[in-house]
Amino acid sequence: MPPSKASKPVIGPDLPEFKFRIRVTKGEAIAVGPGKIDLLLAIDEHQSISAAAKALGMSYRRAWLLVDEMNRVLKQPVVATAAGGSHGGGTMLTESGQRLIALYRGIEARAQEACETDIRQLLAMVGD
Amino acid sequence: MPPSKASKPVIGPDLPEFKFRIRVTKGEAIAVGPGKIDLLLAIDEHQSISAAAKALGMSYRRAWLLVDEMNRVLKQPVVATAAGGSHGGGTMLTESGQRLIALYRGIEARAQEACETDIRQLLAMVGD
Repeated sequence: MPPSKASKPVIGPDLPEFKFRIRVTKGEAIAVGPGKIDLLLAIDEHQSISAAAKALGMSYRRAWLLVDEMNRVLKQPVVATAAGGSHGGGTMLTESGQRLIALYRGIEARAQEACETDIRQLLAMVGD
Repeated sequence: MPPSKASKPVIGPDLPEFKFRIRVTKGEAIAVGPGKIDLLLAIDEHQSISAAAKALGMSYRRAWLLVDEMNRVLKQPVVATAAGGSHGGGTMLTESGQRLIALYRGIEARAQEACETDIRQLLAMVGD
């Protein structure tokens, strides 16, 4: 039987992993964070909040609340629902939502690149 | 009556805030993260795990577990307890603990600097 897609390949001891997590807050609200970006990517893929929620193992209610918070805190909404049309409407990222993801990913990549040497030194402090 | 120290100054609407959070994981364990760095800084200040825990509003048990996890996951321990001596011993950061904090803070600062333009654009997407 072939290994299931979900199974983790066994490659010996876990290697240490470094991650930047980016967060933008406004008062008590989180405008942007890793979870919200993952949700936007899933909505972009599935063109549906409920399918995106399902793919992430999240309740529809929670996904909806996260989208609603983003749409309220950001100047422009990041997710829009089109009514009607031949496919009966649908949910999609707005231009602003696409831009948000691009900026977020760009910051992650640039930060990683700028800090490469220090990150290597930090990882070297973790045992194998 | 003067305002209490704890009260938040009223300066109009909250401004959006950007933060890098850095995390190093190894398998399930978090070797380094914002909470652990804050704890190391507090231990450095108070020279005591229980005083550091108190200052952070954390139980002694939780602080001890976090220190223990770091000491186990990292190659060198980051916190050491000196027995005896004229002051009856004490808890302090090791050289490795100091180095960890310096690397962590250095990465934060360098990342922030490298991404300044993108961060400004991201913050501009959040409403005032």
